[in-house]
Amino acid sequence: MIKTPYLLFLGDAPDQLAAKVAQGIRDWRPEFAIGQYRMEGCRADMGLPDMTLSEARDAGAETLVIGVANRGGVISPEWRHVLAEALLLGFDLASGLHSLLRDEPELAAIASAERRLLHDVRVPPVRYPIANGVKRSGKRCLAVGTDCSVGKMYTALAMDAEMRTRGMKATFRATGQTGILITGDGVPLDAVIADFMAGSIEWLTPDNDPDHWDLIEGQGSLFHASYSGVTMALIHGGQPDALILCHEPTRAHMRGLPDYALPTLEELRDLSLTLARRVNPAAKVVGISLNTHHLSDADAAACVAETEARMGLPAVDPFRHGAARLVDALEGM
Amino acid sequence: MIKTPYLLFLGDAPDQLAAKVAQGIRDWRPEFAIGQYRMEGCRADMGLPDMTLSEARDAGAETLVIGVANRGGVISPEWRHVLAEALLLGFDLASGLHSLLRDEPELAAIASAERRLLHDVRVPPVRYPIANGVKRSGKRCLAVGTDCSVGKMYTALAMDAEMRTRGMKATFRATGQTGILITGDGVPLDAVIADFMAGSIEWLTPDNDPDHWDLIEGQGSLFHASYSGVTMALIHGGQPDALILCHEPTRAHMRGLPDYALPTLEELRDLSLTLARRVNPAAKVVGISLNTHHLSDADAAACVAETEARMGLPAVDPFRHGAARLVDALEGM
Repeated sequence: MIKTPYLLFLGDAPDQLAAKVAQGIRDWRPEFAIGQYRMEGCRADMGLPDMTLSEARDAGAETLVIGVANRGGVISPEWRHVLAEALLLGFDLASGLHSLLRDEPELAAIASAERRLLHDVRVPPVRYPIANGVKRSGKRCLAVGTDCSVGKMYTALAMDAEMRTRGMKATFRATGQTGILITGDGVPLDAVIADFMAGSIEWLTPDNDPDHWDLIEGQGSLFHASYSGVTMALIHGGQPDALILCHEPTRAHMRGLPDYALPTLEELRDLSLTLARRVNPAAKVVGISLNTHHLSDADAAACVAETEARMGLPAVDPFRHGAARLVDALEGM
Repeated sequence: MIKTPYLLFLGDAPDQLAAKVAQGIRDWRPEFAIGQYRMEGCRADMGLPDMTLSEARDAGAETLVIGVANRGGVISPEWRHVLAEALLLGFDLASGLHSLLRDEPELAAIASAERRLLHDVRVPPVRYPIANGVKRSGKRCLAVGTDCSVGKMYTALAMDAEMRTRGMKATFRATGQTGILITGDGVPLDAVIADFMAGSIEWLTPDNDPDHWDLIEGQGSLFHASYSGVTMALIHGGQPDALILCHEPTRAHMRGLPDYALPTLEELRDLSLTLARRVNPAAKVVGISLNTHHLSDADAAACVAETEARMGLPAVDPFRHGAARLVDALEGM
């Protein structure tokens, strides 16, 4: 568990997109972010107060979160003295980069001497159990996609926010680096050892109140040859009561696999249900989330209407329309 | 790649079953096993010459293979001095135990000083790629099961042996610890990091002659909540042309999951085909392997006949009947 609140480290981000982790925290957990730290040349801006490390500590910040990814996912030499100073001032550090904080000898030495924590969220922090398939109390919703990177995390976070607004019992369950940094907790599923994948998801979504919903962040796609095993483990470990189908209607082929066409929403519905019912016979597909980012307003509206009519399920783009109708579908179960 | 031939270390195995790794080598790669090493109290016997370490070295043995598993999968203190002496005499060591040879300080020190190799086959020795889904040349056959431990490895090894007898081009591709120790090579799939599972199977079964068959060892089951993600990665990474359905007809519930019934062979056929065709549209189910170990001869014959008639596919128990009809099915493709 990463201590909050955060100071968001934007480093020398060349543009806003490079700081997408910081943006995710700003969008979904604004109460965690009390300021931003920008170096010379930084071209990202979260609209938060610019703070020095000392100012942020004085304001109560506990963890400096690396909210920026540079090419290659490495810790750049320019950042090192800032990170070292942060540790000396009392910050923990958190990073989702490929290269690890703990592998930087200077940072590791300071953290050890000063008793600070280095959170490398790509590395599973726990030894997860093997899944046992036993039915758990409480309810679970999982977003599955026709492809990778079609908006599964965004959909679950938008539903989580809507459910909190309504006073429903809901917890977003992060399964990827960005999600973990946003919420401070979760399982980095793509880095888990094969035998423990489903068990890690059981661990992440334990018994809960009968009216509590876990909103499980999806990963990969059952139809993506590179990552389908990860998605399978999410379904069998997550025991979802409700499935949300996620789709990006303009994509020409599977992400990174130019020879592979996307499956249809019907194929995704049928396969996901077959698999989910193995662990939860009551599993249902309750709604569709469309990522219409590349469509005009008119085309997006037409796409949503056509999909809703064809599939007989509520369809929304949560970014344009909010997630209220998806949450209505959960409430109606 | 583990150097052959082997001396099989049976240690103080309390019975024959405890030495199942040694038995597998003896059954399937007898040319690799020039002798056995037994300690006082050993109650397993592979019917091989009993040799001292020196005798085995003189006879050409290159690797001492730990062919026995004791409770907990640890390296027992009684074994240590034998293993240390073997290293000093010039052996490499190979083990599939949970506790690792490399974590024994004395063994690690001797191996380093004497330039011997410690093969811990539970630890992936390579950094595998992410799967790219590109169609490869050559043919591949994968055994999939209604459950774990229903005879998938045995089936593939029996087919491999039959195909070599016929002069066909065939390679058994090990994906588990026992298979790796039997053949000296393979991928310990259950220990691979989630993101690289399918890629490790692409790596294991590369481009080959058009008439060459890879016989890929199956793992887990698509219907087993604990391990289904591993099986999924085998199907999407393996791009099988031919699937063999494996089943144990007397099993009352899924292995380790008392609340879960086994799926039918029809369910296994349909789900496996749906998934395999995503990466290989020509994939076919070509035969059925039944593990009739717990049935009488008459009941086994009836079970095989009933299954064959119902499914319209050749069905055999390769242990009782050999794998010839399954290989006929591959030849007929």
